[in-house]
Amino acid sequence: MRQSTFIVIAISLLLSMSCNSGKHVKSDERVSYAIVIHGGAGTIKKEHMTPEKEKAYRAKLNEALDRGEAILKGGGLAIDAVVETIKILENSPLFNAGKGAVFTADGTNELDASIMNGEDTNGGAVAGVKTVKNPITAARAVYEKSNHVLLTGNGAEAFAQKEGCEIVDNTYFNTESRLRALERVQAKESQGSVILNHPDSKFGTVGCVALDRNGNIVAGTSTGGMTNKKFNRVGDSPILGAGTYADNTTCGVSSTGHGEFFIRYAVAYDIAARMAYKGSTLEEAVDDVIHGTLKERGGSGGVVALDRKGNISMEFNTEGMYRGYRKPNEQFVGLYKNE
Amino acid sequence: MRQSTFIVIAISLLLSMSCNSGKHVKSDERVSYAIVIHGGAGTIKKEHMTPEKEKAYRAKLNEALDRGEAILKGGGLAIDAVVETIKILENSPLFNAGKGAVFTADGTNELDASIMNGEDTNGGAVAGVKTVKNPITAARAVYEKSNHVLLTGNGAEAFAQKEGCEIVDNTYFNTESRLRALERVQAKESQGSVILNHPDSKFGTVGCVALDRNGNIVAGTSTGGMTNKKFNRVGDSPILGAGTYADNTTCGVSSTGHGEFFIRYAVAYDIAARMAYKGSTLEEAVDDVIHGTLKERGGSGGVVALDRKGNISMEFNTEGMYRGYRKPNEQFVGLYKNE
Repeated sequence: MRQSTFIVIAISLLLSMSCNSGKHVKSDERVSYAIVIHGGAGTIKKEHMTPEKEKAYRAKLNEALDRGEAILKGGGLAIDAVVETIKILENSPLFNAGKGAVFTADGTNELDASIMNGEDTNGGAVAGVKTVKNPITAARAVYEKSNHVLLTGNGAEAFAQKEGCEIVDNTYFNTESRLRALERVQAKESQGSVILNHPDSKFGTVGCVALDRNGNIVAGTSTGGMTNKKFNRVGDSPILGAGTYADNTTCGVSSTGHGEFFIRYAVAYDIAARMAYKGSTLEEAVDDVIHGTLKERGGSGGVVALDRKGNISMEFNTEGMYRGYRKPNEQFVGLYKNE
Repeated sequence: MRQSTFIVIAISLLLSMSCNSGKHVKSDERVSYAIVIHGGAGTIKKEHMTPEKEKAYRAKLNEALDRGEAILKGGGLAIDAVVETIKILENSPLFNAGKGAVFTADGTNELDASIMNGEDTNGGAVAGVKTVKNPITAARAVYEKSNHVLLTGNGAEAFAQKEGCEIVDNTYFNTESRLRALERVQAKESQGSVILNHPDSKFGTVGCVALDRNGNIVAGTSTGGMTNKKFNRVGDSPILGAGTYADNTTCGVSSTGHGEFFIRYAVAYDIAARMAYKGSTLEEAVDDVIHGTLKERGGSGGVVALDRKGNISMEFNTEGMYRGYRKPNEQFVGLYKNE
């Protein structure tokens, strides 16, 4: 008996140590609110950063979390917290979503976004929009004001405009740094390099998952996709079940990474399915998908997720992921593996 | 002990009886090949059919199965069987895919298709193409010749053309009966009717799942979507995990029905997840999703599916589903609940 007690204590200690890494944050009792965000996973290393750039990222992540937390603290809805938080990330040129989205091979910006509400397990998404200032607002309009889940291209733009989303010229999204990234990728491509693993070529998606005081979980994701993308390629971000998923009975998830893998392995839904069918905890489900299924097959990226008790996971199999969370009296922002 | 033996025998008898309904077909040992198809689920009732029309549907389903079975019997690949079988259904005006696709609100035809290979759990899909004669061939090209999973609109068409898919004028897809269906739905809409449940407004997707002699499972789906669709709406058919899924370790699935529900509940992947995580049989997983998850939430439709042993499910929660299968020395074609 003594030995087994010792083992239990040892395991508990090990678990609590792993929680302190900032990747998984446990809640023993249901918290009154929780919010977690990402600004993309990828080759994010301290040695590539300037102190100014790092400061700018941390400040913007905190600004976004401030906004979402204020809504949730005030008794607001998870869906409002997710949309307003993502709008801040979309409006910042630091992230590959909205302003600052990467360029397609044609030199334009094509944006995808989705949102899902765990209360009714319904959602909305847009893919390939070029003129909607905040694609997450168009995704919300699809959810709230149409019978559909996914609208694409010109049709999605016409719908967003009809529903009052702010429309901008495609040049609004342009930034000098993303244009340079396109030029670098196209130069590599013309030399015959395999560009798939080029650090400029993907990642930078933004996402948010929030739990409100009513116990509702909402998840949202927004992206500019892949630098130099061709043929109106669509990744996982606008696909419910791949880039975004929410169900109040299990969890909410927002993905970032090599989208093709996230579609093939239905990553966001798979985390919920492991909780529902195998009885996995959020932490186990996220670890198994990110470090198991995806890593074994070469699918790089990460997710942020939370469950109905407010347990939080921010897990990635890349060098880093822009990320952060807030709960009552708790906050965290990190960029690299070691925060 | 005697009593438990009796119970086992009774349960076995009940199970074997349920297999004779033509919805679930069990294989005790792995068969050398199997193929199952659907031509859409919906309000398919004997009283709405003429004997000629019924004969035409049964003949076309058998023609498609003949083609796929010949490939598999000859030792061919599951992917070839799926593509060639679906091409026959796409080329027939009887089904809402390829020639005979339903019309969008603009009076055009926009087609979606996807294919997934259970050997490498990779696949390809196109959404919103207007000029590719056989969208399933474009989906295959995305799988085999690109690093992407989902291409859309003009980009998908440009890619398909580059890869040698046959290109036709959009008017090729037009049929008189689908134009009449558009007119009926638009007339109802102008009267303010809720058109969502109009029998003309959805369904008719085609799909195929095949198991070849090497144990590889491939699934494919092709559709014209929803009559009177607007805003470049995309349903579940081009979404891996929703409309189509294949994994040699579990099963292959092709969906048909009210696509928005199939996306939200990741229907095709969910069947595989229940087998992998809960230990459900194919039959249990399909029943739980079609008659549980979907029906409880108002999501109408069905799936055809098979597992690595060649067990087959053709299950739907609608009035009927055009469907059929072949295995060595077994064949079946059905339209209504009672075949």
